[in-house]
Amino acid sequence: MTYCFAINTQSGFVLCSDSRTNAGFDNISTYSKMHTFTWPNNRVFALLSAGNLATTQLVIKRIKADLDSGATPNLLAVRNMQEAADYVATVSTSVQNLHVVRDNGNVSFEATFILAGQIGADRHETLMIYPQGNYIHESDEHPFLQIGEVKYGKPILDRVIKRDSQLAPAARCALVSMNSTVRSNLTVGPPIDLLIYEAGSLNFTHQLCLTEEDPFSKQLSEAWNKGLVAALENLPRFYWESPSGNVAGEPAASTLNRGS
Amino acid sequence: MTYCFAINTQSGFVLCSDSRTNAGFDNISTYSKMHTFTWPNNRVFALLSAGNLATTQLVIKRIKADLDSGATPNLLAVRNMQEAADYVATVSTSVQNLHVVRDNGNVSFEATFILAGQIGADRHETLMIYPQGNYIHESDEHPFLQIGEVKYGKPILDRVIKRDSQLAPAARCALVSMNSTVRSNLTVGPPIDLLIYEAGSLNFTHQLCLTEEDPFSKQLSEAWNKGLVAALENLPRFYWESPSGNVAGEPAASTLNRGS
Repeated sequence: MTYCFAINTQSGFVLCSDSRTNAGFDNISTYSKMHTFTWPNNRVFALLSAGNLATTQLVIKRIKADLDSGATPNLLAVRNMQEAADYVATVSTSVQNLHVVRDNGNVSFEATFILAGQIGADRHETLMIYPQGNYIHESDEHPFLQIGEVKYGKPILDRVIKRDSQLAPAARCALVSMNSTVRSNLTVGPPIDLLIYEAGSLNFTHQLCLTEEDPFSKQLSEAWNKGLVAALENLPRFYWESPSGNVAGEPAASTLNRGS
Repeated sequence: MTYCFAINTQSGFVLCSDSRTNAGFDNISTYSKMHTFTWPNNRVFALLSAGNLATTQLVIKRIKADLDSGATPNLLAVRNMQEAADYVATVSTSVQNLHVVRDNGNVSFEATFILAGQIGADRHETLMIYPQGNYIHESDEHPFLQIGEVKYGKPILDRVIKRDSQLAPAARCALVSMNSTVRSNLTVGPPIDLLIYEAGSLNFTHQLCLTEEDPFSKQLSEAWNKGLVAALENLPRFYWESPSGNVAGEPAASTLNRGS
């Protein structure tokens, strides 16, 4: 599986993706699922992908080939983010159909993408492109888009991310959302790609690829665990609790049959 | 959907369940999914249920009818938790089969249960009973069992719950796990049933049913949000960050095209 997501705030966007791919439990590999296309001071795009690896790889190859050959449409020729999304959607559905017509079985060739970018003076946008080629943008209430194993990491985004969140705190929240998913689901794994884009900069200057052993990853994970323990300690007590933390009205813990 | 789970620690167990049921998006109701059976100083059982509501209701009814009529096996006659789990599993599969043979379509009559209890001087146990009637206990590494919409609330349990966790903090962590799920998934909803059982007490004395408007629920949710924000603020900064929180090396935020 995969976990990729984009946070779209007033001041830019944050993208985060894992790198684990698996075809069955005994065929696990590592591939980056974040692909960037930059023409500094002109336009920037990033694509996050989930789904069939052969499909997503061929989509990226075709996008690059169109740029090399100058075939239109291509990412340098599109005039706005909607044209960019239409273009990626056309490439994606065309690649999926290519595989489907050659298949005799029930393999899923589907792929889902998140396209993020900014063209010239237009505003920055993030779009989720479904396997069918249609697409949606994020909402003002929940300004993020997720693909793949989205559930484990959703609560922290739901609670914290707002349209006016600052970029660096949003990026730290993104790493927590990813860390929670990696800890709870074996099919999502490092290295973690993180990209922070400041609106209007028209260049990608802040990207991290965090391996499991990266000191920053470890510091972050430890600090988060510490913070969670503190947050739990500060929760209100049940009405029956004595100050010692035992359940009031019950015999002291040491006198009880402790069972298992 | 449903979210129910059991935390099994050295000092007892904590059970937590939501109350939302839905047959389609326009047919939503409220039913408790926690059922308790107590014979003080003899034995206690609690059943959490997920799946087809008609199945789970009939299973509970049959368990009660067997007790009333004295038919064996029943929960008062079983000699240990394994016999109790076998008995519940037999009732469950029998009810499911009853529905299946009368059905012409593709309705799922499946139900999954968590059975928790203690009989006399035996140790307290928690068991998850699959629709097929087989069952498992929790593990020492992750001493909890979940059924229904398990993913949203799993990261906090994975990070915090240990075999030697104290009961009251484990119960607060349970409410956080439930709160995260309720916030992120519309099909899981209050009131929330919480039961805290101290090993050896052979009685259920600490049960809460928390509605959405309950002051304790609100305090807990607010305190948790505050704690999370503090935890995020204490995470390590990216190497490029200036003390102001802006992305260093970029123009000051106020000079940028702010886009959306």
